[in-house]
Amino acid sequence: MPRITNNFKGFMNTPENDNFLRACRGESVDRTPVWLMRQAGRYMPEYRALRSKHTILEMIHSPELSAEVTLQPIDAFDLDAAIIFADILTLLDEMGMGLTFVAGEGPQFSHPIRETSDLDRLEVRPAKEALGYTIDAIGVTLNRLQNRIPLIGFSGAPFTLACYAIQGRGSRDFYMAKQLMYQQPETWDRLMSILADAITDYLLAQVEAGVHAVQLFDSWAGCLSPGDYRERVAPYSNRIFQAIKQAYPEIPFIHFGTDTSAMLDEIKTAAGDVIGVDWRTDFGRAREVLGTTPAQGNMDPLKLLGSPETIETGVREVIRANAGRCGHIFNLGHGIHKETPPENVKYLVDLVHQVG
Amino acid sequence: MPRITNNFKGFMNTPENDNFLRACRGESVDRTPVWLMRQAGRYMPEYRALRSKHTILEMIHSPELSAEVTLQPIDAFDLDAAIIFADILTLLDEMGMGLTFVAGEGPQFSHPIRETSDLDRLEVRPAKEALGYTIDAIGVTLNRLQNRIPLIGFSGAPFTLACYAIQGRGSRDFYMAKQLMYQQPETWDRLMSILADAITDYLLAQVEAGVHAVQLFDSWAGCLSPGDYRERVAPYSNRIFQAIKQAYPEIPFIHFGTDTSAMLDEIKTAAGDVIGVDWRTDFGRAREVLGTTPAQGNMDPLKLLGSPETIETGVREVIRANAGRCGHIFNLGHGIHKETPPENVKYLVDLVHQVG
Repeated sequence: MPRITNNFKGFMNTPENDNFLRACRGESVDRTPVWLMRQAGRYMPEYRALRSKHTILEMIHSPELSAEVTLQPIDAFDLDAAIIFADILTLLDEMGMGLTFVAGEGPQFSHPIRETSDLDRLEVRPAKEALGYTIDAIGVTLNRLQNRIPLIGFSGAPFTLACYAIQGRGSRDFYMAKQLMYQQPETWDRLMSILADAITDYLLAQVEAGVHAVQLFDSWAGCLSPGDYRERVAPYSNRIFQAIKQAYPEIPFIHFGTDTSAMLDEIKTAAGDVIGVDWRTDFGRAREVLGTTPAQGNMDPLKLLGSPETIETGVREVIRANAGRCGHIFNLGHGIHKETPPENVKYLVDLVHQVG
Repeated sequence: MPRITNNFKGFMNTPENDNFLRACRGESVDRTPVWLMRQAGRYMPEYRALRSKHTILEMIHSPELSAEVTLQPIDAFDLDAAIIFADILTLLDEMGMGLTFVAGEGPQFSHPIRETSDLDRLEVRPAKEALGYTIDAIGVTLNRLQNRIPLIGFSGAPFTLACYAIQGRGSRDFYMAKQLMYQQPETWDRLMSILADAITDYLLAQVEAGVHAVQLFDSWAGCLSPGDYRERVAPYSNRIFQAIKQAYPEIPFIHFGTDTSAMLDEIKTAAGDVIGVDWRTDFGRAREVLGTTPAQGNMDPLKLLGSPETIETGVREVIRANAGRCGHIFNLGHGIHKETPPENVKYLVDLVHQVG
């Protein structure tokens, strides 16, 4: 596949609307920046139209389609950042784990990791090669964005990827992953190290392709007690953070996990210039822990299924908790729900700009 | 069905081993009391043997079988409390919602609540009649326990029951329940009021049958932001608490929710003499919020899938955070996992008594 070049490298160009980047750095903004996790997704008719013709993996494997999906919410709403359309699980798929999306059951891997010898099967290739389609999608997207707003790159965090790699599918508790973590600490260390290195390589490739910021999604970190997180997970996320900051200190690094409301200090200590906050805590309480660290969040995504009053109350609550502060990026506390009416998203985004 | 009488009413008799009750009251104990949520369950071969011959509902509908299952872990381990074997969803089933347990998919209701008119279908009968099998099971169990240790009664909390009643089945986010909560506040209030009254009646019936303490399980409260919990959920749980305390002030009332680590003060304000703490927070941090309020928890249940060292570290961490304090009941942060080796449960229980 030919590499697509672009002139819009994140670490070289400041977008016209750089409120998101300024908030990430704790600087003053013209308006509270807002983007929404999973803003390109099934709740949009434009997405569903494309999805009816392609599988998820087809869309991700095509830089053109990925760019198109990335830009769908940007065309529809006055968002302050785009995030590249991809999936955290492609990194594992490209290691030879055999990813499939089973209708009604979600992602599944045909070759899960259950013991040390399974690690030898993992094929580690450079991200620019293994995940070249997403790297190329970044180039296509940046060319189309024409430097209007920043583009965010992302990866799953080692723990969350290990959860899927070991369990082989989604789970409420990922007990197989935690069982391996408790029972086979050396295998755990090897797997987490492999993942941390691959994620670092992937994020660096994204930055070099031009993204303006990166987000590490530790979606399942909330399965863990704070003690286990500190001991068995944080060092690997920290390794990634250190490597990215050393290479590109000016690229903001956002660290987000769900169900981590009661261990935000662990999350912050592990990694991140900006900490994502889920909806299970009051933002004011999160601020007590995070201090002046820039933070992103945290309206309950399901409030977008409610009335305009529900949305307005939710928006004002989050904005009020951040009033007079620099370093707040408005977002939901989790990905946008597929049942969300698009007009509610428009209402939300405009309201954030109006009151924020 | 004939009512079974017994002479072991919780509010009349002190069990020989009353460490659990003393801890619930914040009094000093001979040893740290321990019981485990879902201690009667699939991890036990004795349970699976019985379960292979009966459906879950058959077991719950039979006072004899319920008592037998309740006592299985008491016979196997040196536990300081028993909890009556039942299911939080029978209360909804007996309102005519049509509960079935679908293999591999969990509980489902054939008549979910989606609009106001659905509420008119709910058949509210006295708990002693509708749930007489569980009330009778309490009698049988108390007769067999012979006052050795206390017996705990329980119910689902209004929010958790509303989640199932509206969604009609388990869910990661119970979005239909929250959507109704946001969109139809009057229907929400009516449903939550009906549930709060029915739960109160059910818990009172359990106390009158002789349980020594009650636990309110708000398993899904962690779906909510603290603000929504305060406004739309806490008042109903509080109503139950007030009613029970007014009738039986000496019966300890335990209030437990999962995913509530970042809103323990809301949980405590809503209801409870004793607050259950899940494993997503350090107990020390929970203590900062709860102060001297007795508390129960909070080892990660999946540590029981680990090595003896993993279990020992987990036990010591929880005990250490409560060292020198009255008012701690050792428990897991959530129900025991079905893959747990029974010998690990024995190891845990004995270790708690040894170090606690």
